[in-house]
Amino acid sequence: MADKLIVFDTTLRDGEQSPGASMTRDEKMRIARQLERLKVDVIEAGFPASSNGDFEAVRAIANAIKDSTVCGLARANDRDISRAADALKGGHRTRVHLFLATSPLHMEKKLRMTPDQVYEQARLSTRFARNLTGDVEFSPEDGYRSEPDFLCRVLEAVIAEGATTINIPDTVGYAIPELYGEFIRNLRERIPNSGKAVWSVHCHNDLGMAVANSLAGVKIGGARQIECTINGLGERAGNCSLEEIVMAVKTRKDYFGLELGIDTTQIVPVSRLVSQTTGFVVQPNKAVVGANAFAHASGIHQDGVLKARDTYEIMRAEDVGWSANKIVLGKLSGRNAFKQRLVELGIEMESEADINTAFLRFKELADRKSEIFDEDILALVMDEAVVTEHEHYRLLSLAQHSETGERPHAKVAFAAGDAEIHAESDGNGPVDASLRAIESKLATGAEMLLYSVNAITSGSTESQGEVTVRLQHAGRVVNGVGADPDIVVASAKAYLSALNKLHSKVERVAAQG
Amino acid sequence: MADKLIVFDTTLRDGEQSPGASMTRDEKMRIARQLERLKVDVIEAGFPASSNGDFEAVRAIANAIKDSTVCGLARANDRDISRAADALKGGHRTRVHLFLATSPLHMEKKLRMTPDQVYEQARLSTRFARNLTGDVEFSPEDGYRSEPDFLCRVLEAVIAEGATTINIPDTVGYAIPELYGEFIRNLRERIPNSGKAVWSVHCHNDLGMAVANSLAGVKIGGARQIECTINGLGERAGNCSLEEIVMAVKTRKDYFGLELGIDTTQIVPVSRLVSQTTGFVVQPNKAVVGANAFAHASGIHQDGVLKARDTYEIMRAEDVGWSANKIVLGKLSGRNAFKQRLVELGIEMESEADINTAFLRFKELADRKSEIFDEDILALVMDEAVVTEHEHYRLLSLAQHSETGERPHAKVAFAAGDAEIHAESDGNGPVDASLRAIESKLATGAEMLLYSVNAITSGSTESQGEVTVRLQHAGRVVNGVGADPDIVVASAKAYLSALNKLHSKVERVAAQG
Repeated sequence: MADKLIVFDTTLRDGEQSPGASMTRDEKMRIARQLERLKVDVIEAGFPASSNGDFEAVRAIANAIKDSTVCGLARANDRDISRAADALKGGHRTRVHLFLATSPLHMEKKLRMTPDQVYEQARLSTRFARNLTGDVEFSPEDGYRSEPDFLCRVLEAVIAEGATTINIPDTVGYAIPELYGEFIRNLRERIPNSGKAVWSVHCHNDLGMAVANSLAGVKIGGARQIECTINGLGERAGNCSLEEIVMAVKTRKDYFGLELGIDTTQIVPVSRLVSQTTGFVVQPNKAVVGANAFAHASGIHQDGVLKARDTYEIMRAEDVGWSANKIVLGKLSGRNAFKQRLVELGIEMESEADINTAFLRFKELADRKSEIFDEDILALVMDEAVVTEHEHYRLLSLAQHSETGERPHAKVAFAAGDAEIHAESDGNGPVDASLRAIESKLATGAEMLLYSVNAITSGSTESQGEVTVRLQHAGRVVNGVGADPDIVVASAKAYLSALNKLHSKVERVAAQG
Repeated sequence: MADKLIVFDTTLRDGEQSPGASMTRDEKMRIARQLERLKVDVIEAGFPASSNGDFEAVRAIANAIKDSTVCGLARANDRDISRAADALKGGHRTRVHLFLATSPLHMEKKLRMTPDQVYEQARLSTRFARNLTGDVEFSPEDGYRSEPDFLCRVLEAVIAEGATTINIPDTVGYAIPELYGEFIRNLRERIPNSGKAVWSVHCHNDLGMAVANSLAGVKIGGARQIECTINGLGERAGNCSLEEIVMAVKTRKDYFGLELGIDTTQIVPVSRLVSQTTGFVVQPNKAVVGANAFAHASGIHQDGVLKARDTYEIMRAEDVGWSANKIVLGKLSGRNAFKQRLVELGIEMESEADINTAFLRFKELADRKSEIFDEDILALVMDEAVVTEHEHYRLLSLAQHSETGERPHAKVAFAAGDAEIHAESDGNGPVDASLRAIESKLATGAEMLLYSVNAITSGSTESQGEVTVRLQHAGRVVNGVGADPDIVVASAKAYLSALNKLHSKVERVAAQG
């Protein structure tokens, strides 16, 4: 039997650290359930010591997920490790993941510690973690730029203390495939007890080589775990893409000879969910999950493809979950059909009352839009979740008008806590006028970093618009998402949703990886 | 002195073949000028035999560009080669690029030719091309999946006939770095006259490894030309990204030891131009040119970065042309300042009358928007170019209204040739109502594949919205782009711009690479 390659997804931890990609507990839970359906081996759910919100998210996910191992990140100190272990308590299969920088630059400039101090801390914190849990991963941060002799010394010690997985991050995305593969092979050959741990790769995409570097770590270096994220989400240029690495290993099984547990037909659904949740668009020419990734998915039938599919296609679109949008529900669909569809989409509502609220909104939408797609249901439920979770600001009504030669004007009514606020403004366009109206009353001073709109379903101009607004205020960056068939209404919802996130002040600690 | 690596950009040929990325002659010219400013060695400007429009585009670019070699693609037959040579006539430095499939699958299913027939055609067409021009590149299409013995025989023959560059495409994106590198090394070692040609790599990104494969072709295989596109534009998952390959070779000069002629500070401007022109968004977590690619470009200052920049950054944002948006012009700016800025942006207007028209529109915009950025000027001029080039449909005026609880309504007036058409409709939202109004009169039946909006400049809600609409009709896919501070107006402009492209019927032949 072929070796198994462990797929470790860190969308909810390293991916979420992307500026603007922070998620609420419910959003993380929804993605975790989809990752379980995708059959990833390990879900890194968060960094419990970084904030109470993240602690709660990791705890909820650890309690809900049965088929994947749930992992929590911790700096290599007793407090962080205890927090991670506490959050994971009660989980079915869990892992604590410690990290500590080992490169000369990081030790000197960031940690301000000597190599001997780092060595001791790595050893003692691994021992501490191992006393709390049997599954301990250790990552020497900026490992690829670390001095090999020192790294061997540290890794041998942490394996001796019981670390079960050793992960070598290319934290800054500096590696080249053959060099990174050799680097890991060299470590494994030199460290006497290296066979007692599973070796893992964690690559960033700053030079566009995260996938190739990870695969070289596996093929040349002998690693058997790959850390990756959906859509390659992550800080700067992001992490290794789960969808690319999985399809490379499957498509080139002739070369890699490795088994994967992944259900690839779940790839496109989870990609869409992550993109809708974070507001991070997937570019059309993105491998595997981009709208153009498969010729026929974009409606084009080329001569060559018609003559023989494999002249230009090495994968099949349906294998990764591409299928035409299906009309799933309409105006006449009842509550049971709606509830059934929620179950099929993997959406779990907390109470019957929540289902009722969502169903009412579904009927409102169906009155305005004749064909309801899965994406519409997802948007509706996510919108609902945002509203119920952080309900400080809520849109009540909006009226706007624009006409060539006149200045656009908008009137907005919204709730702020228990108060009902009425505002109006003109602006350069109807969206600008609506947001100015809100801002005229709240004066948040938030700076808008991004505004984008995507139609949720294609194929019809009656599609809902999904607006993402990214705001920055006092050093924090948040995303707000709003969906509505009326783009101006969707924009006001997105703006208020972002303000709700800013309103719920959360102090967080950032981790790199 | 280190070896020189030749950068061959095919944004205007392989990139343009992406469904929805087709460009007008003026758009191609504008990008070609920016590529020249980027100092790419070779610009593949198009496929002259594919359409009269592309012939004209290649001719115009060959006549305008002085510092880069201009290349035209041709199938390996006399007619195509003659058309390419004709289009390039009068150019400063030019190249004809022939392609012919050599893989068993492509020869049998697509060409329906025997290997001997392919061998003969490759030989004779190279001879024909070499008699017309001194710079001939030959690409065995699907080369990486070709049988090595046969490929050696074909390539030896075409080099003997005078091909000066031999390019090995991984047409379907199937390669793995070390295998692709060895494949090219093996060819170069086995072919007796291989030293008489420059070897080139051309990789697709279906498994996310186009950059790593190209670099392995260079480092392991000994290639000295890389074919790539801006933003990795291209069919399916796209081509190797120019920006990634260039920054990898520069950042890891310690390993590659190669010289590049590229002016990297032009990378972000050309990336923006290509994205704005094609409507293909660049995802935020895209290496080098994504909005999040550099931590501080997204407004985040992390502890580590503040302590020492190189703890997390291996490149500097300013080296690739990232800079804060600068307010360049305002309401009080005169015609001379505007004209000067056009020159600095590399925009060349054909006549003083065109400058006057653009200046009038600039003043209109400045009345509505207090701060004018470079992106605004670019959008304005591109919008202008679209309008003047394909002026069949033109927006005259628009009025719309939406209000919670009522059905949105729009009135649109537009020109269709000499006629002035007035239309109105309701819809699910103001955009839907406006497009329905247009469609109610034209009944084009075009299917909408994509609708997206991006704010052209960030940092203010008064930013212009840039709308991209992708339509499919009768087997053709076109993009329309429209910009306006009013998102509904921008949408109507984008829709009419797409209809203009559908209206100008062009028959084209598709090439793969």
